[in-house]
Amino acid sequence: MSASTDVKDMSRLLKLAKKFNCFYVSGFNSSECKPFIVEGYQVGLIRPDVMKQLIYFPEVFHITAGCVELNPAFRDYQERSVKIDEVLREFRCKDTFVTLKGWRDECFEVKTGFNTQSLLKMDRSATCLFGIQNYGISINGFVKHPEKGHCLWFQKRSSTKQTWPGKWDSMVSGGLSVGHGILETANKEAMEEASVPPILLQNLINVGCVSFYFESERGLFPNTEFVFDLELPVEFVPENADGEVESFEILPVSKCIEKMLADDFKTTSAPVVLDFLIRHGVLTAENEPGYLNIIELLHVPLQTIYGRYHNEVRENGIAINSA
Amino acid sequence: MSASTDVKDMSRLLKLAKKFNCFYVSGFNSSECKPFIVEGYQVGLIRPDVMKQLIYFPEVFHITAGCVELNPAFRDYQERSVKIDEVLREFRCKDTFVTLKGWRDECFEVKTGFNTQSLLKMDRSATCLFGIQNYGISINGFVKHPEKGHCLWFQKRSSTKQTWPGKWDSMVSGGLSVGHGILETANKEAMEEASVPPILLQNLINVGCVSFYFESERGLFPNTEFVFDLELPVEFVPENADGEVESFEILPVSKCIEKMLADDFKTTSAPVVLDFLIRHGVLTAENEPGYLNIIELLHVPLQTIYGRYHNEVRENGIAINSA
Repeated sequence: MSASTDVKDMSRLLKLAKKFNCFYVSGFNSSECKPFIVEGYQVGLIRPDVMKQLIYFPEVFHITAGCVELNPAFRDYQERSVKIDEVLREFRCKDTFVTLKGWRDECFEVKTGFNTQSLLKMDRSATCLFGIQNYGISINGFVKHPEKGHCLWFQKRSSTKQTWPGKWDSMVSGGLSVGHGILETANKEAMEEASVPPILLQNLINVGCVSFYFESERGLFPNTEFVFDLELPVEFVPENADGEVESFEILPVSKCIEKMLADDFKTTSAPVVLDFLIRHGVLTAENEPGYLNIIELLHVPLQTIYGRYHNEVRENGIAINSA
Repeated sequence: MSASTDVKDMSRLLKLAKKFNCFYVSGFNSSECKPFIVEGYQVGLIRPDVMKQLIYFPEVFHITAGCVELNPAFRDYQERSVKIDEVLREFRCKDTFVTLKGWRDECFEVKTGFNTQSLLKMDRSATCLFGIQNYGISINGFVKHPEKGHCLWFQKRSSTKQTWPGKWDSMVSGGLSVGHGILETANKEAMEEASVPPILLQNLINVGCVSFYFESERGLFPNTEFVFDLELPVEFVPENADGEVESFEILPVSKCIEKMLADDFKTTSAPVVLDFLIRHGVLTAENEPGYLNIIELLHVPLQTIYGRYHNEVRENGIAINSA
């Protein structure tokens, strides 16, 4: 043990935490990406590969040395949403970006912080092109088994899903779409994905959130998941109702670590499982050398990560989400 | 509601989270403080008021434009600890720093990360002069009351305590001293401070940690608390055994927010209570507008906050705590 430790000694779980935060730990400070500005606020980040395509739409995107700005002449939420949608549909027709093959016809809000007014909406498949903050819910369905102790349910995603097909995932999860609340979404997804009856959903507890910044070939994913714990009776077996799940499996917590580390586990769902194992005392500083670093990597400062720019460009008003 | 929100609209709990993170949110990026370097690693930060006194000990501290370095000629843990201790005792005799009035004869380790080898030890009253990372344990003693729901125990600190005398605090807490483990410290403090019997301590669960960076007139406090939940039977009443507690009080969770916001609550214990209220679903994004920001402010990246310097000064080896 030295005063500092090499990467080769890093725990497998800390490596995983850096993997789902790959953009936070290495990409974020590179100058390759430019802030995406709407109405004077940074709402995202744009990679060079996307920038190269946006230059063909100078009436929508003003690209300068320092940033990409949505045309400030657009008057309101409606106009901004329509103008971006037109560009995205053109990209989609031309097959410019792989992520748009997963067009959802379901929009996410674009805003400077979770509790601030939305500036526009955008199809959820496109938000990663602009590094827009994503919000979702995840549910840890667990059982306190008389012999096996705490056990956690997992779902295997359908092989026809547009993202992470066939990968293992939390029991239930879903994105927060325009017009839907957090608890409402959690209840809806639990019923659709796992047929949890309303009587059992009364046990649903929002136990915090995890925040991480992932990057893939599809784009940038600053992700905040509202985490729910749902204690289930031993005899309950989830059943899929919407065709998006291939199967379910239940595992004692001691086997969840290997599950999460396997190649067939959805990388961006590992934070929710890690958080569960930490909150329930399965992972501790005594059995996991990366404990403190992992906890910090489950809560990277996404609410303020774009805030620095606000403070530079705006002289009046302090953003609620500026640290 | 606007795209950004003024400070005046900020929730009281978010204000509190910024108060116990006052150095993180406003002081950390000021250039007033200099990194404190030991064996080539940054282990702390030094304020101008402390620097002014260290210049009288050039054989111990090498002060340059960019940093304060402990004399690299000191050979080992032992010599470094002794040399610093000599300086601190001189400061103490001369009444140079108010924090040293609370000399403890109890040492904290000085290291680059929780799991790295200690570089020296230092009396715990002095660590805030150097911005050394502090580690401690805190216990949320709670009861699932049949009528009142979840209730949380608080302790009132003795009026003779050197820090935060007479303030309300978590049921049990304590610093991690040289040679003592996390769970060991939690058990010891629970017995000493609240007379929790061993049979009840079997319920002690380490449910995570909170990290925050506080500053007071005494110094800089980068603080990581290992958080424990301890479910207690309704009939259990804590009783102090070491003279450090004036009294105990139990409150339903709905009253804990006002308790925490009152002037007679120890600012640096609020993170542990906030974390409890979040993990148990009392505070949610639906009833607390600052929810996401508060969660991020309960987990500021202390394990990597000094890491940037490591990477600049060292060419070989990647610190485990560099994000």
